Amino acid sequence: MSQTPPVFSRDRLIRFSDCDPAGIVFYPQYFVMFNGLVEDWFNEGLGLGYQRTVIERRIGLPTVRLEADFKAVSAMGDWVTLSLEVERLGGSSLTLQLRCVGREDASLRMTMRQVIVTTSLDTHRAMEIPADMRAAISRQGPQR
Amino acid sequence: MSQTPPVFSRDRLIRFSDCDPAGIVFYPQYFVMFNGLVEDWFNEGLGLGYQRTVIERRIGLPTVRLEADFKAVSAMGDWVTLSLEVERLGGSSLTLQLRCVGREDASLRMTMRQVIVTTSLDTHRAMEIPADMRAAISRQGPQR
Amino acid sequence: MSQTPPVFSRDRLIRFSDCDPAGIVFYPQYFVMFNGLVEDWFNEGLGLGYQRTVIERRIGLPTVRLEADFKAVSAMGDWVTLSLEVERLGGSSLTLQLRCVGREDASLRMTMRQVIVTTSLDTHRAMEIPADMRAAISRQGPQR
Amino acid sequence: MSQTPPVFSRDRLIRFSDCDPAGIVFYPQYFVMFNGLVEDWFNEGLGLGYQRTVIERRIGLPTVRLEADFKAVSAMGDWVTLSLEVERLGGSSLTLQLRCVGREDASLRMTMRQVIVTTSLDTHRAMEIPADMRAAISRQGPQR
Repeated sequence: MSQTPPVFSRDRLIRFSDCDPAGIVFYPQYFVMFNGLVEDWFNEGLGLGYQRTVIERRIGLPTVRLEADFKAVSAMGDWVTLSLEVERLGGSSLTLQLRCVGREDASLRMTMRQVIVTTSLDTHRAMEIPADMRAAISRQGPQR
Repeated sequence: MSQTPPVFSRDRLIRFSDCDPAGIVFYPQYFVMFNGLVEDWFNEGLGLGYQRTVIERRIGLPTVRLEADFKAVSAMGDWVTLSLEVERLGGSSLTLQLRCVGREDASLRMTMRQVIVTTSLDTHRAMEIPADMRAAISRQGPQR
Repeated sequence: MSQTPPVFSRDRLIRFSDCDPAGIVFYPQYFVMFNGLVEDWFNEGLGLGYQRTVIERRIGLPTVRLEADFKAVSAMGDWVTLSLEVERLGGSSLTLQLRCVGREDASLRMTMRQVIVTTSLDTHRAMEIPADMRAAISRQGPQR
Repeated sequence: MSQTPPVFSRDRLIRFSDCDPAGIVFYPQYFVMFNGLVEDWFNEGLGLGYQRTVIERRIGLPTVRLEADFKAVSAMGDWVTLSLEVERLGGSSLTLQLRCVGREDASLRMTMRQVIVTTSLDTHRAMEIPADMRAAISRQGPQR
C-alpha cells in the first residue's frame, strides 16, 4: 500500500529584486526563496514556529551540504511553485528535497537536495533534533 | 465632502533573510519590501502589470528622491502591513507615501516619501507618464 | 582660515549582484554599499572596529532618518567612489553626508544625508555616544 | 614533474550585511561572494572583462550545477580568502572548485564545485566557449 510522501509547497512571484541584469533569477536568490519556504513550513506546516525555534529556543538550522541543479531559467513576473519533501530524518540532521517549478508551464526550473543540521546557537555545535520537532516532522507522514 | 485617499496595502512576514545580526530588519531591506509593494500595486491595484511595464514596454521607474524615518524596529517573525498612497501625480513623476506598521501592535515602524519618475529604459531619460498609467492611477481616487 | 572637513572614501566596483534587470544599481543596494563604507570608516578611519562596536560592545547604530537624491545611474562594471563626511555630532546622534561619484567621469550618482543614533542592542534604546567614539570622530577634524 | 594548478584568490571582509540573526554568514551570501570572485577573475585574472563579456558580448554564464559543503561558520568581522581553481574546461562548460578559508586561522569554511555553461543571452541556449575565453583560461596553466 504505497503512499505519496507529503509535500509542503507555496507559490511565489519572481520579483524585480530577485533578478539580475539578464532579467532572470540571480541564482543565490533561489536559496533565499527556499529559506523562506522552510520558514513557512516551520510556521504553517509543522506548527513549530521558525522565530520561536531560532530566536527563543536558540536552535540553529545551518545547511551543511547542498546539491543543486538549474534546469531552466525563471524570469521576472513568473509565478513559481516552491516545494519541499523530507528525504531523510536523521539523529541531528534533516535531508530535504526542494523544487522550483513554473506554475503556468509546469517546467522544472531548479531542484536541490539540502542537508540541514540542528545546532545550539550558543555553541554552534550539532545537537539532537528535539523530540517535538522530530514528532512534528514524522507526523507529516511516511518518509521514503 | 472630504474623502480619505485610497490606500493600497499588503501584509508581509519579516523573514530571517530580512534581518541583520541584531535580529531586526536591516534597513535597506525596507526598500526591497516597498519595491515589492509597488510591484503588487502595479499588478493588482492598477492592473498595469509591473513586468509588462518594465520589460515589455521598457518603462523604467527609478527613484529620484526619498526621505525615510525609522520609528521603531521590526523583528524577525513580525507581521507588518506595508501601505502606499499617492501624494502627487506630476507630468513625469509620482510621489508616494509609504508606511510600514506592525500588524499586531499597530505601531509605526517606518515611513517614507518616494519620488519616482517614468523613464525610457533605452535612453534612461524621463518621459511623460503614459496616458493609461495616468488614468489607472487617477481612477484610484482623489489625490490630495 | 577655512578648512575642508575631512572625508573618508573608498572606491568600489559596481558588481553584477548590485544590478537589476535594467542593468543598473538596484537602489536599495546603495544603502548596502554605504553601510559597508561606514564599516570601513569604523575599522580603518576611526580605529574603533565595527565588529567590536556592534558585537562585543553591543552598541547598535540604527539609521533614524535619511534623505537621498539619485542624480545619475551607475551601471555594472562602473568604478565609483563612495565618500562620507560628518555633518553633525550630537549627544547620541551622528549626521553623515554620503556621496557616490563615478571614478572615471566624476559625475555625481547619488547623495544621502543619514542620521544614525547610538543604541544599546540589549534595550534598543538610544544611549550617549561613548567617549572614545566621540573622541575618535572629533579627531577626524573640524565639523561644521 | 608535477605542477600545482594555478589558483585565483581574493581576500574579503565578512560584513554586517552578509550576516544573519545568528551573526554568521547567511549561506546564500557565499554564492554572492563567489560570483564576485568570478567577476574579479574575468577582470583581473583572465583579462576578459566581466562586464564586457556579459553586457557587450551578451554571453551568459549561468550555473547549471553546484555542490557545496559548509564546514565551519564565518562570523562578522572575519577576513576570509576566497579562491578558485579550474577543474575542467569542456566544450561549453567550465567546472570550478571554489573555497572559502579563514585568513587568520586557515580553517576551511566552505567549499563548492560549480559547473557554469556559456550561453547566448539572446536565446538562453548553450554556446561553445569562445576561442579567446578558452585561450585565456588555458593560459592560466595546466588543469588536472
